[in-house]
Amino acid sequence: MSTTLSSDADYAGLLDRYDVFMFDCDGVLWQGDELIDGAVEVLALLRRRKKQIVFVTNNATKSRKTYKKKFDHLGVEAHVDEIYGSAFASAVYISSVIKLPKDKKVFVIGMEGMEEELRDEGISYIGGTDPEDCTFEPLSLTEFKPDPSVGAVICGLDTHMTYRKLSKAFQYLTRNPECHFLASNEDSTYPVAGGRLLGAGAISAPLRFALGKDPISIGKPATTMLDCIKAKIDFDPKRTIMIGDRLNTDILFGQNGGLATLLVLTGITSEADISGPNASPIVPDFVTRSIGDLRVLETLN
Amino acid sequence: MSTTLSSDADYAGLLDRYDVFMFDCDGVLWQGDELIDGAVEVLALLRRRKKQIVFVTNNATKSRKTYKKKFDHLGVEAHVDEIYGSAFASAVYISSVIKLPKDKKVFVIGMEGMEEELRDEGISYIGGTDPEDCTFEPLSLTEFKPDPSVGAVICGLDTHMTYRKLSKAFQYLTRNPECHFLASNEDSTYPVAGGRLLGAGAISAPLRFALGKDPISIGKPATTMLDCIKAKIDFDPKRTIMIGDRLNTDILFGQNGGLATLLVLTGITSEADISGPNASPIVPDFVTRSIGDLRVLETLN
Repeated sequence: MSTTLSSDADYAGLLDRYDVFMFDCDGVLWQGDELIDGAVEVLALLRRRKKQIVFVTNNATKSRKTYKKKFDHLGVEAHVDEIYGSAFASAVYISSVIKLPKDKKVFVIGMEGMEEELRDEGISYIGGTDPEDCTFEPLSLTEFKPDPSVGAVICGLDTHMTYRKLSKAFQYLTRNPECHFLASNEDSTYPVAGGRLLGAGAISAPLRFALGKDPISIGKPATTMLDCIKAKIDFDPKRTIMIGDRLNTDILFGQNGGLATLLVLTGITSEADISGPNASPIVPDFVTRSIGDLRVLETLN
Repeated sequence: MSTTLSSDADYAGLLDRYDVFMFDCDGVLWQGDELIDGAVEVLALLRRRKKQIVFVTNNATKSRKTYKKKFDHLGVEAHVDEIYGSAFASAVYISSVIKLPKDKKVFVIGMEGMEEELRDEGISYIGGTDPEDCTFEPLSLTEFKPDPSVGAVICGLDTHMTYRKLSKAFQYLTRNPECHFLASNEDSTYPVAGGRLLGAGAISAPLRFALGKDPISIGKPATTMLDCIKAKIDFDPKRTIMIGDRLNTDILFGQNGGLATLLVLTGITSEADISGPNASPIVPDFVTRSIGDLRVLETLN
């Protein structure tokens, strides 16, 4: 059962027990374009207490550099090397785990952010935002010359997905021996102002269905994302807490990595999802209504 | 175990036992744009013997009228009312089984053929080939005014699928009470010259994934397609044979409907799929190499 944080001692306990605070962003620090009340103050307080801050997002459409602009725009202190996005993690996975040879390429279903992270990691790619692939032009397989150097297909959220791009990806995954099938993350949807839109998991779904197999997923809840953070930061999982609004991504991610977990209710999860007859089997260690609740720490000591 | 047709008596037996011959087309009568040797002669022979001919295709991109042109082009006698496509069956399903009220609409992910069949059945629709939906324009949910009269979403093969179209479909399926989720068929891929492309099943896959549920599928192997044929033709399933090249669509369709089944090996299924250690659990009643083998009937009697 989760502990619902309420007393001063509950909140103070977080500061005693954890050195590293990993934050999901959307639904935790902000909702769309609106800051969660108190988020800036709480982050500042944690920095003053010398806590290590890490931002972990499944957003694969933005590179870390571009994602940093969102923090700047909302007035939240953040540094590029504190930000771990699933596009960055995908690029690190391809270069460090798969160790894709330098003469191989990645075929991208995804947007600028994915391309930027691949480029920064020195990985060659085709597809993605190439106007040649973002059209309704039919793909003639008798004329199509597949690039034999494509050794992986990565699928992230792509609002310019086309039948042509998916069809090319399908050719690589069925014709090129040992071509890796990767997804930035498996989020089925994501919240936007006014509702939900299809997530990166839905973008790779046509290929999943046609191939009859699932991609290796890089983002939360996979531990791949944590491996990527581990490669850059030295931390003790026992003294690390993951703070998020989604049970099946953020909280599961923390649990898969042996971290403590704190659920906030300012995003996609409601009270009904964690208690009562339809409660999820994924149970966070701690629950608090909002990250802003940690402001109480200002008044302690 | 299947009976492999070989003797004159084997082939003559087909004429004695069956009055209705249902044919899949691609891989049975033709391969892409090339006729299977003997197909025209065999169809003519069956017609002379007063057999009822039915063509059953999962192709949802063409209306029956347009599909008829393919027969004409290849010099195969066929009549529009002998052709049952999954777009036509979808329209019949919506009007006759769901009985969608006349003031309701269908949101289409699909092409001209689907729209034509819906129109012919007197069903209103939006989406589909509407240029407004076939763009990469982002969908703003704060500005989007969902049409409350949308009572069903139908997904067929759509080479102009867009994130925008899929996102709108997702809104209807999650916001409009009791909005039906339909697919013309679940084919994961389909054969074209030079290989395979993604089928209609892959087009509905993003919605499947995001909703966590499967659509009602109309085409083969679902019996919905057969119900649609039954509504138009009076036939005895015991005296009907389904002839096809795919085990998991054509042959399963015949078996689900209590029909006899004949597999031909001129399409997607090879000898290895029906015998040996990796044989499919779907076992047709009869197997012959090609529909052209039935030409032997010319010389009998």
